[in-house]
Amino acid sequence: MDMPAPNSGIQARKPEIARRLRAVLPPDAVIEAQEELKAYECDALTAYRCPPLLAVLPETTEQVAQIMAICHDIGVPVVPRGAGTSLAGGALPTEDAVILGVARLRDVLEINTDDRYIRVQTGMTNLAVSAAVEDEGFFYAPDPSSQLACAIAGNIAMNSGGAHCLKYGVTTNNLLGVTMVMADGDIVEIGGAEMEAAGLDLLGLICGSEGQLGIVTEATLRILPKPEGARPVLLGFDSNEVAGACVADIIRSGLIPVAIEFMDRPIIRATEEFSGAGYPDCEALLIVEVEGSAQEIDDQLARIVEIAKRHDPVTIRESESAEESARIWLGRKSAFGAMGQRGDYICLDGTIPVGELPSVLTRIAELGAQYGHMVGNVFHAGDGNMHPLILYNANEPGQLESAEQLGAEILKLCVDAGGCLTGEHGVGVEKRELMTHQFAPVDLEAQMDVKDVFDPAWLLNPAKVFPLAVSASRRTAE
Amino acid sequence: MDMPAPNSGIQARKPEIARRLRAVLPPDAVIEAQEELKAYECDALTAYRCPPLLAVLPETTEQVAQIMAICHDIGVPVVPRGAGTSLAGGALPTEDAVILGVARLRDVLEINTDDRYIRVQTGMTNLAVSAAVEDEGFFYAPDPSSQLACAIAGNIAMNSGGAHCLKYGVTTNNLLGVTMVMADGDIVEIGGAEMEAAGLDLLGLICGSEGQLGIVTEATLRILPKPEGARPVLLGFDSNEVAGACVADIIRSGLIPVAIEFMDRPIIRATEEFSGAGYPDCEALLIVEVEGSAQEIDDQLARIVEIAKRHDPVTIRESESAEESARIWLGRKSAFGAMGQRGDYICLDGTIPVGELPSVLTRIAELGAQYGHMVGNVFHAGDGNMHPLILYNANEPGQLESAEQLGAEILKLCVDAGGCLTGEHGVGVEKRELMTHQFAPVDLEAQMDVKDVFDPAWLLNPAKVFPLAVSASRRTAE
Repeated sequence: MDMPAPNSGIQARKPEIARRLRAVLPPDAVIEAQEELKAYECDALTAYRCPPLLAVLPETTEQVAQIMAICHDIGVPVVPRGAGTSLAGGALPTEDAVILGVARLRDVLEINTDDRYIRVQTGMTNLAVSAAVEDEGFFYAPDPSSQLACAIAGNIAMNSGGAHCLKYGVTTNNLLGVTMVMADGDIVEIGGAEMEAAGLDLLGLICGSEGQLGIVTEATLRILPKPEGARPVLLGFDSNEVAGACVADIIRSGLIPVAIEFMDRPIIRATEEFSGAGYPDCEALLIVEVEGSAQEIDDQLARIVEIAKRHDPVTIRESESAEESARIWLGRKSAFGAMGQRGDYICLDGTIPVGELPSVLTRIAELGAQYGHMVGNVFHAGDGNMHPLILYNANEPGQLESAEQLGAEILKLCVDAGGCLTGEHGVGVEKRELMTHQFAPVDLEAQMDVKDVFDPAWLLNPAKVFPLAVSASRRTAE
Repeated sequence: MDMPAPNSGIQARKPEIARRLRAVLPPDAVIEAQEELKAYECDALTAYRCPPLLAVLPETTEQVAQIMAICHDIGVPVVPRGAGTSLAGGALPTEDAVILGVARLRDVLEINTDDRYIRVQTGMTNLAVSAAVEDEGFFYAPDPSSQLACAIAGNIAMNSGGAHCLKYGVTTNNLLGVTMVMADGDIVEIGGAEMEAAGLDLLGLICGSEGQLGIVTEATLRILPKPEGARPVLLGFDSNEVAGACVADIIRSGLIPVAIEFMDRPIIRATEEFSGAGYPDCEALLIVEVEGSAQEIDDQLARIVEIAKRHDPVTIRESESAEESARIWLGRKSAFGAMGQRGDYICLDGTIPVGELPSVLTRIAELGAQYGHMVGNVFHAGDGNMHPLILYNANEPGQLESAEQLGAEILKLCVDAGGCLTGEHGVGVEKRELMTHQFAPVDLEAQMDVKDVFDPAWLLNPAKVFPLAVSASRRTAE
């Protein structure tokens, strides 16, 4: 992965920078030792690593503001880091950058069940937010697979989704307001507990901006009452095409299941061997889960089964108990582990219009064969958010590169089908150079112009989101 | 209403501007005659009027691009106009501005029921969009009261809502993509039929930007399958406080009715006299409507009635037929007409957290008494979007001014309660000067910086959204 040349002038000033940061932070909040900095040299895109200049772990918004003011004054790049679970390299450091980790910002600031919101510091994990309101009968809807570990800060940066987002929307639909520290250390409040904001929608702009516009330290999040119950049905089909058509029909019917998960044959085989979930031998499986009262669940499942029957399913297994539900989900939940047993893999993240599912799956299989990589598909089908897994052997020279090339082809295919490079993982460094396939120069210029407004010196989360060559003139402007 | 001084240099060049516009437009698309321009001198905020320099009525995106290129070249301000139904003066001209009306851009470009979207030119009315997909069993969810007349262009500009937005979200939740003509005439595509976009969320930024960033000529809109049926229950209470608490409990329960409409005593009396809807004599009425299958409707209404009973209602009238439903809605739908019978009125549009309803209603009554104006409240209670109606007598000197002052106080009250100046009408010229109450200087500077990116010469929809004094330095920068 190409990265811009580090600023050696900054590296020479490391002692001065560390001294100024120590002066405003608690004793153990500035990490300078190379062995300790190793923990910050990559995120979940582990193929790429780079030690940062320093790491800082502030505990308050005011401390973040002081860090930003110092870095702005000296001209040090800052890489914000949530829990480091980014699959797109969203928190990959550069050698001349300070890592600003929000892990110690993890207080609950306010819970208001009347107005259905919680205000938290953004270092809290996603699951901890739901846990904080569980006793009141509420939950926080976006649920990335990494929800046990991932921080709200990263969820906001990447506009994260999850299995529940078909019904409840992604982060941007559940974020009401933020406290953000600007590149120069100013603290601003954007949005709040009310429905809407006047003027330009800066909150919408900041959600999904991948740390390019500021450091979000506090967030007001919408919480929802927990449903009475939930139950899945497992549907097996003879081809990806038919399973895709069934998904489109369910969506078209107006039903809004909580989840529609799709697994193709490579995934079914791998998970069955790995987990013994008892999946049928077929080309494609859907797990469709609905929620509500017992009556509502029965009604919805009946309608889904009725729709499925029009597509000649080879299996219809409606869960009748919590044990059966767990068994249906077992294979799906072990899919990534199962593929990991078969080799190294890259997990892609593209979106397509739901109606394009059958043709895109066919084309992915063709591309996989052409490049000689096995590709498994396991994904949130209801909203067209695909996660092709490309298997490769990291110990064989050239395999990573060819898997990455195949990945780029598949993401371009998503864009050409009327979709998008990323559904929930973000662009990061991983998909940076593909942005020119999705956006015309004038679109990228407009985005970079907006970045200029918030971060004129381009110090925030360097070398992410925008293609290096395209953003070069901006980065050297200061 | 203060407006900036018109540019007399521009006015002197009117013949040249008209000639250049005529050269690129159909014969009857350039309106120059003063008597014809009268139709464009105000929108639904009729207290303020100003004749524009010219009006143009293009038929294609390419024609819009040519208009914008010419106006950019000469330095003529452009005021975009949908159907002219803005209650906030969003389409109020200045004397030196060209009105760009999108009324002739009204083609359906594509309907895709598999992927649930429709692509239209933005001059189409809101209701025409639903009508275009009705035979397929679909509808477009946002439904402003003006839906028979208002254009999609204006809905996008103001991020419009409506009674259905409690369940289905406002325009920004139902907008998938736009074709936009930039201030200099460039044509860009933003978003599309897929779930999400990579990079900065420019689509979210443009929705609700009140014509400050570009001219949206085409839109891809999410469509939804029509529900099987819908039915309301009318609930009467002894006080606004108790009705407000009932709303909060319904919301808290997790039920999502299609609409929760609130009427206070002044509105109940006025509508009852006017329409004879048969409303009970009480302090506050709620209309709660649910939709779905017959069984789902029964279940939901039963739960709502159960919640209402905890609040000692004086009336519970569950509709059993289409006639009864129409009768329950009759008073609500005639509320604005009924108040119009009693005098002139200003219709406000603020939002508050739902839990603040009781205290805000009490404070509004106190402020009304203090200013000597009758204030009626009829609004979408489920999402805290208030529409206080302030009665005044336009023929009595000083009454408009005092009603406007009261309106400003009420909107400040909404902001101070944790809410916002506008829920769905937008800022326009009406609430421009109140923006400083909601936003700190640094927030407004950030918004104006973003405006600079899209419209560096500040030619788009002048004198709206930003306080005149605050934006003065930007406007004179060119």
